[in-house]
Amino acid sequence: MKGMFLTIEGTDGAGKSTQIALLADFLRQKGCSVVLTREPGGTPIGEKIRSLLLDPANGDMTSATEALLYAASRAQHVSQTIVPALQEGSVVICDRFYDSSVVYQAYGRGLGEAMIKSINGWALDGLEPDCTVLFLLPPQKALERARKDHAPDRLEQAGLSLQQKVYEAYVALAQREPGRIVTVDASQSVEKVAEQVQQAVWEKLQKKAAL
Amino acid sequence: MKGMFLTIEGTDGAGKSTQIALLADFLRQKGCSVVLTREPGGTPIGEKIRSLLLDPANGDMTSATEALLYAASRAQHVSQTIVPALQEGSVVICDRFYDSSVVYQAYGRGLGEAMIKSINGWALDGLEPDCTVLFLLPPQKALERARKDHAPDRLEQAGLSLQQKVYEAYVALAQREPGRIVTVDASQSVEKVAEQVQQAVWEKLQKKAAL
Repeated sequence: MKGMFLTIEGTDGAGKSTQIALLADFLRQKGCSVVLTREPGGTPIGEKIRSLLLDPANGDMTSATEALLYAASRAQHVSQTIVPALQEGSVVICDRFYDSSVVYQAYGRGLGEAMIKSINGWALDGLEPDCTVLFLLPPQKALERARKDHAPDRLEQAGLSLQQKVYEAYVALAQREPGRIVTVDASQSVEKVAEQVQQAVWEKLQKKAAL
Repeated sequence: MKGMFLTIEGTDGAGKSTQIALLADFLRQKGCSVVLTREPGGTPIGEKIRSLLLDPANGDMTSATEALLYAASRAQHVSQTIVPALQEGSVVICDRFYDSSVVYQAYGRGLGEAMIKSINGWALDGLEPDCTVLFLLPPQKALERARKDHAPDRLEQAGLSLQQKVYEAYVALAQREPGRIVTVDASQSVEKVAEQVQQAVWEKLQKKAAL
């Protein structure tokens, strides 16, 4: 595939949205065709699944149901949005992807990585990100930031203990896959974070183009 | 578990709904506590997933997304509705269950049984029906019956070729598991079908009570 698949990960409130917008601008200025998308969601069916997942009224959702809904949204997203955009040569920037299922469901909810891997195998159909930018911010600080912005959704309500597990799982994941995952300290200024992200992504793009 | 888990299977239009109502009446008259439920659905979250699955507007849903949504609905259903009702000693009558995923997704959509088995393993959590009543009606006849009743939904629109595959997969399944699956010729009169179903289910109940 000609395009490049970038995924953006991080705990809630680490400033992903701002950085994604800045990164998209940067890449467009460099002449790239950029497709911005997100999980859960990214397709009409996926956005309906997203509504189910984030609705505080569905607070009695089991962890298995939750993991299967994320995978369902992803199956549709990979097939209908991501793969076609990559085939057209676009840079796809995806706000959360498979790593989020690993850290939130496998570790945060305690379902284990084997389950998440097996149900997502069918959804991913062999697709892997070329590069993942991981925004790391200590959970306590991230949660304070999120609460300033908006009323907490169902996942944020699960609170600090989940966020702490997720944070630790992200750190472990980054250590396991240093070639794919670029870790950024999200406690720095917006400008400084943006600069580091742009530099890392641009390097990856140049490398991929040279292959 | 004290209760009994009955699942009802069959191609569309085989008269399942009528027979389920008659069977529930029969069992209640015998003094059983009966819980009627269905898949996809059976819980508030499951019914929302059901709406996604049956909405003709979602015609571009991939087969993998579909299979994962059925499993998500099932995970919630098993944990929140079926297992608690069985623990209270009820007879649970479920309109469609895991076998429907096997015949519709694994064989009808061609996903294969390995995929369906692996994603449903997490949803079922070890639960198996004590008895399954399978209503068999040749697809051509079943489709004609369904079209008399209501406008075709998204699954019925997939049409006769899918129904034929599903029918054959059901026949094969019944041959593979004769101990669990009771096959009923649904082309007979409503009264005759009801009588056969009642007799078969009552026998299974007596056997289970004797254990």
